[in-house]
Amino acid sequence: MKNIKLVIEYDGHNYAGWQRQENAVTIQQVLEDALEKLTGKKTPVIGSGRTDSGVHARGQTANFFTDASVPPERYSYALNAILPRDIRIKHSEEVPADFHARYSAIGKTYRYSMVLSPHGVAIGRHYYCHIPFPLDVKAMKEAAEEFRGTHDFAAFMASGSSVKTTVRTVFDARLEEEGDFLHFWVTADGFLYNMVRIMAGTLIDAGRGKISSYCIKDIIISKDRSLAGFTAPAHGLCLERVYYKNLPENMV
Amino acid sequence: MKNIKLVIEYDGHNYAGWQRQENAVTIQQVLEDALEKLTGKKTPVIGSGRTDSGVHARGQTANFFTDASVPPERYSYALNAILPRDIRIKHSEEVPADFHARYSAIGKTYRYSMVLSPHGVAIGRHYYCHIPFPLDVKAMKEAAEEFRGTHDFAAFMASGSSVKTTVRTVFDARLEEEGDFLHFWVTADGFLYNMVRIMAGTLIDAGRGKISSYCIKDIIISKDRSLAGFTAPAHGLCLERVYYKNLPENMV
Repeated sequence: MKNIKLVIEYDGHNYAGWQRQENAVTIQQVLEDALEKLTGKKTPVIGSGRTDSGVHARGQTANFFTDASVPPERYSYALNAILPRDIRIKHSEEVPADFHARYSAIGKTYRYSMVLSPHGVAIGRHYYCHIPFPLDVKAMKEAAEEFRGTHDFAAFMASGSSVKTTVRTVFDARLEEEGDFLHFWVTADGFLYNMVRIMAGTLIDAGRGKISSYCIKDIIISKDRSLAGFTAPAHGLCLERVYYKNLPENMV
Repeated sequence: MKNIKLVIEYDGHNYAGWQRQENAVTIQQVLEDALEKLTGKKTPVIGSGRTDSGVHARGQTANFFTDASVPPERYSYALNAILPRDIRIKHSEEVPADFHARYSAIGKTYRYSMVLSPHGVAIGRHYYCHIPFPLDVKAMKEAAEEFRGTHDFAAFMASGSSVKTTVRTVFDARLEEEGDFLHFWVTADGFLYNMVRIMAGTLIDAGRGKISSYCIKDIIISKDRSLAGFTAPAHGLCLERVYYKNLPENMV
């Protein structure tokens, strides 16, 4: 049996998220169906984590075990010939047997994208959250950097979620301006449920003057979800990259 | 009667191009229907020119005459409330009675976008022409600049088209690299039918070594369509901007 790792890009617009579920089309299901078609066997795929309905990925990772004779680096070509155009395998390779897309991950980078203009955009409208009102971008930049460090991010988790610990280390968090577009980049050792979308909603509130950038630390300390901002819409979010130890070649 | 000028962005993926036609949904038709809904009167819209099925625009322009009482700068908001999300009015303003979106235009900028990677992209797949084979980008850059100047571009016009003159002045032509993406930017006083897509196809042929960059001038001189490259697919093309004399405010 070979353990094969995939790097996957997808446009989440037409999917009910990553994870297989009844009565809805998901990325995992479409990928598993393609693998079954290719190898002739039911082949479960392990993702690095779920992404919600409408969320995109440029660097989702997954692994699966197979005894098919396809050369590891050819899975990308073979699967792309079967998969719909809104899911692309960017890279495939054989990895050690103990590699696990979720448990072996040591970090992830997400990008949350917004377009700041009165009328939004037609081109790429499924990839940006449209903010029709003016924002104080300087205040947002300052606020974004306040997320850096090891903190208990309980205030930035969807209420009702359960998890062993809500402490996470944010390696980097910053806001990038590109014309009318704003990108919030955040890299951490792991993310709580809806964490990036709540961070993005909090930054938008900071940009509107509803939350002072100095308050971010207070919101973190409070561990109170109700003090953080709204959960920004799914379609602005993109999983950019998943990091693994000793796999420098996955840096695509 | 007021003469109103619009700057329009659209995602051409779901449309049979700009121009109204039977049995197919076009941008012009959807826009005229929205205007009729808004003003209560049939209101013909004059575009700066046609765009083909699947071609996008970030800066198409159009004008229409109306006696409706809507303040000119409010048409963008009022129309966007009616229009589908893949058509956005970016700007509206009153212009002099003799302004004509097509006849008053003194130039246009187009961008032709490609993604150079083995597997293409899922995100934004309708906005880039996927080139799965390696290209000599340096040769393409040199070739792109050869289009500059006043030339008879008959070799870069779809065969069978009829037009008074095939002489056009290309103010600027250049190739821009952005990671895996290549953008061919071209600005001219006017374009022949399929001119940018044939230029793009010729650049791709130059990148594959099928045409030397030094040959571009020879192809131009030949006026022979069969010597130029293929017509690159519509979905890589975007009308970025239309220029008018004495309307500096339309530089969006």
